[in-house]
Amino acid sequence: MPEKLLYEGKAKKLFTTEDPGLLRVEYKDDATAFNGKKFDRMEGKGQLNNAISIFFFEYLGKNQIPSHFVRRISETEQLVRSVQIVPLEVVVRNVAAGSLSKRIGWDEGRELPYPIVEFYYKDDDLGDPLLAEEHIRLLELATEEEMQELKKMGLAVNKVLRPLLEQKNIRLIDFKLEFGLDQNGGLLLADEISPDTCRFWDADTGNKMDKDRFRRDLGGVTEAYREIYQRLTGDNL
Amino acid sequence: MPEKLLYEGKAKKLFTTEDPGLLRVEYKDDATAFNGKKFDRMEGKGQLNNAISIFFFEYLGKNQIPSHFVRRISETEQLVRSVQIVPLEVVVRNVAAGSLSKRIGWDEGRELPYPIVEFYYKDDDLGDPLLAEEHIRLLELATEEEMQELKKMGLAVNKVLRPLLEQKNIRLIDFKLEFGLDQNGGLLLADEISPDTCRFWDADTGNKMDKDRFRRDLGGVTEAYREIYQRLTGDNL
Repeated sequence: MPEKLLYEGKAKKLFTTEDPGLLRVEYKDDATAFNGKKFDRMEGKGQLNNAISIFFFEYLGKNQIPSHFVRRISETEQLVRSVQIVPLEVVVRNVAAGSLSKRIGWDEGRELPYPIVEFYYKDDDLGDPLLAEEHIRLLELATEEEMQELKKMGLAVNKVLRPLLEQKNIRLIDFKLEFGLDQNGGLLLADEISPDTCRFWDADTGNKMDKDRFRRDLGGVTEAYREIYQRLTGDNL
Repeated sequence: MPEKLLYEGKAKKLFTTEDPGLLRVEYKDDATAFNGKKFDRMEGKGQLNNAISIFFFEYLGKNQIPSHFVRRISETEQLVRSVQIVPLEVVVRNVAAGSLSKRIGWDEGRELPYPIVEFYYKDDDLGDPLLAEEHIRLLELATEEEMQELKKMGLAVNKVLRPLLEQKNIRLIDFKLEFGLDQNGGLLLADEISPDTCRFWDADTGNKMDKDRFRRDLGGVTEAYREIYQRLTGDNL
C-alpha cells in the first residue's frame, strides 16, 4: 500500500503509512498568519518546529500527558498515531495577549490571576472564531464530558510546560492545543506544540520568540525559533 | 432636588428623580448601529420604542417576570427602578441570524434545535464582544449563580414572548436583554425590549420588522416599528 497525502494544512502535510493506525507528518517551511492572508516561506522553520514539537511531546509523555507522537522519522518528519481531530482549538492563557487583549481590553503582558482555557472553532472559512460552550453544544463539536476533559488536559499541559519554560527563562504567555479521539474514544493531545502555536516571551527582556514576530513584521523569526530550540535542548539546530 | 441627566446612551437618556430609587427614562429618536458608526434620526422612533417596551414589560410582569419598569410618564418617557446594570448583554436566540450566522456558518433563518443564550461584554470601546463564561469569571462581571440566573431569566422571557409574538404572526428570531441588581442584590430585567433590541420577522413573508432594516438599509424602519406596535396592541401610533 503506497503512501497517500491525506491532508495538507498551512504548516504540515499528513500522509498515510502502511499501518492504518499511524500517519507520517511532514513539517513545512511555510509561514502563514491571519487565516492564510499573510504568507511566506521560511527556510528551516519546518525542521525547527518538528524538533521543538518532538521535544515537547516527549517531555509531556514523561510527565503523564500522552500525545499522538510516536517517533521522529527525519529532520522534518515524525510518526504519529492516527486520531479523529476534535474541531476545536483549545487555547490556554497565562497572560493577556493577542485576541484576548482586544476582547477584554487588558494590556498585552498583564498576568491573568489564574490560567484560563478558551475554545475556538477550527474552521478556516469562518476564521476560527471564539466559541462559548453553548455554541459547542449546539454544533455538537464535543460532548459535555469531552469539554471538561479538554479544559483539564489544557491546564495539565500548562502545569508541566510553564515551569519548564521558566527554567529556560521563557515566559509562557499562551498556547493553542488540538486534540484527537483515538479508536477507544479517548482524547489524545495532537497537532504540534511550537513557536507557531505558542506565545513565548523572553523572561528578562519581554522579547517575542514566536509567530508574532512574523504576524507583526518584527523580523528575526527563524532566529527566535532557533533560540527556543537552543534554550530547550542546549543544542543548536 | 432638581432632576439631573445621569447618563445619555445611544437611544435613551436617564435622569434622576426626587426619589433616589427611581429614574426617568427618555426614549430618543436617534438610530445608531455598528457601535455608533452608523447614525440617523428617525422621527417617532422614541415614542414607538417607549410604547413597545412598556407593552412588553407589562406583559412580562403579568407573567411573573418582573422588570425595572414602574409606570409610563409620557409618550416618550417611563419611570423605572434604579438598578446597578450588569455589564453583560444577554442574547437569546431561537433562529440563526446576524453575528451567530457569521460565527457558526449557519444560514440566516435556520431554526436552532433549542434556544441558546449568549453573553456579550457591554463595552462600547471594545465593540461589545462575545464572552465565554471563562471571560465573565476572569473579569468578575457576574458570579457563577448570577450567570446561571441570567440564562434562566433570558430563557423565561423567551418562553413568554415567543408564543405571544407567534399569535401576532411575528417570528421571534433573537433578542438582547440587560439586567440590573436591585438594592437586595436581586436580578431585575432592565433596559428596553423593542425592535431596536430584538429581531422580529413577519411569520409569513420573512420580512424584517426590526433594526436590521436600518442596519442593512432596507428602508421603512419606522413603518415596521409601527406595524409591530399595531400587531401587539391593536392600536395605531
